Amino acid sequence: MPKRGHYDRTTVHAIIDEALVCHVAFAVNGEPTVIPTLHARRGEELLLHGARTSRLLRHVAEGNPVSVAMTLIDGIVLARSIFHHSVNYRSVVVHGTGRLLESDEEKLSALEAVAEHIARGRWADTRPPSRKELKATSVVSIPIELAAAKIRTGPPMDEDEDYALPFWAGVLPLSLQPGKAIPDPRLGRGIEVPAYLRRYRRVGS
Amino acid sequence: MPKRGHYDRTTVHAIIDEALVCHVAFAVNGEPTVIPTLHARRGEELLLHGARTSRLLRHVAEGNPVSVAMTLIDGIVLARSIFHHSVNYRSVVVHGTGRLLESDEEKLSALEAVAEHIARGRWADTRPPSRKELKATSVVSIPIELAAAKIRTGPPMDEDEDYALPFWAGVLPLSLQPGKAIPDPRLGRGIEVPAYLRRYRRVGS
Repeated sequence: MPKRGHYDRTTVHAIIDEALVCHVAFAVNGEPTVIPTLHARRGEELLLHGARTSRLLRHVAEGNPVSVAMTLIDGIVLARSIFHHSVNYRSVVVHGTGRLLESDEEKLSALEAVAEHIARGRWADTRPPSRKELKATSVVSIPIELAAAKIRTGPPMDEDEDYALPFWAGVLPLSLQPGKAIPDPRLGRGIEVPAYLRRYRRVGS
Repeated sequence: MPKRGHYDRTTVHAIIDEALVCHVAFAVNGEPTVIPTLHARRGEELLLHGARTSRLLRHVAEGNPVSVAMTLIDGIVLARSIFHHSVNYRSVVVHGTGRLLESDEEKLSALEAVAEHIARGRWADTRPPSRKELKATSVVSIPIELAAAKIRTGPPMDEDEDYALPFWAGVLPLSLQPGKAIPDPRLGRGIEVPAYLRRYRRVGS
């Protein structure tokens, strides 16, 4: 199978950065829950933020383990046999326990990472959090230490005897593409779409 | 906040069908794990398949609960304040316990749903599983009963006093788009890209 584990930092970081959102799993009394949420990376830390009242963030702050997946879909893999159909993807799963960021300084720096994760260049082009907003926001940091990347690329792998079958086989690439920016109906006159949104790409951010 | 819970079946089914992959959370001895995997829907059942040796599938087959998220990203929401930045998305989370499909007939029908989930029209255009392949494959079915959909759409919501700020605000749409089909290097001559791949869309499948 053309699947491999990739554990080098550069690969892991690139997948985390390209994925806009992640899926966080946590367990309460053995009951698992999964939640999609926005993340960001700051060096070797994975940052999750949300309302101070968030059940997930309080759970992490209490020292409970989480598992966080970042998944990028690159295409569907169409083999001659249904058995060998697959998906081309890149994913990272991070396991670990986190800590709650306590100081305003650390929280601000984390929210800067979040803004830059959403769109590189955005932090300088938005109103930073007020003291009240900062107080209403929790941020947890999870070390990117126990991280496993998985990548599948390339064409389908069929059984030898199936290559003669008359079915089309190959890959249909899929990727998350930006459309045309939609201005807020209440946008002030003369405010143009910034360059970092006109040439927006998740890759290589 | 322009977030709402949507619980009607049509909305839940449409999100499950449009999402190519899901994220499954399960817990072993209190340790949560999340795994991205391909899913399919058959009526009110969510189907997961994989190798018979799959840790996740055996866990489900033993009657343990899982939480499964299907998430569609529709865009980034850029507010004048960093605090009100968000993501437009549609997601469904299904909680439940599953059952292992036992008969070859039920497994075949489930794998047909998987093929059609990957690309509508594919099942009739591929070699069905052999007895041996069927034996190597496990399929579990989870009822789509405890399902919660969440949807965020529309422009950012800023604080009243922030609307006068000189920052661009609005939505940058994002969507999973197909590229040009890449034929398998070993594709037989004269086999054209089928119509269901030329006009491939996840929506309304």
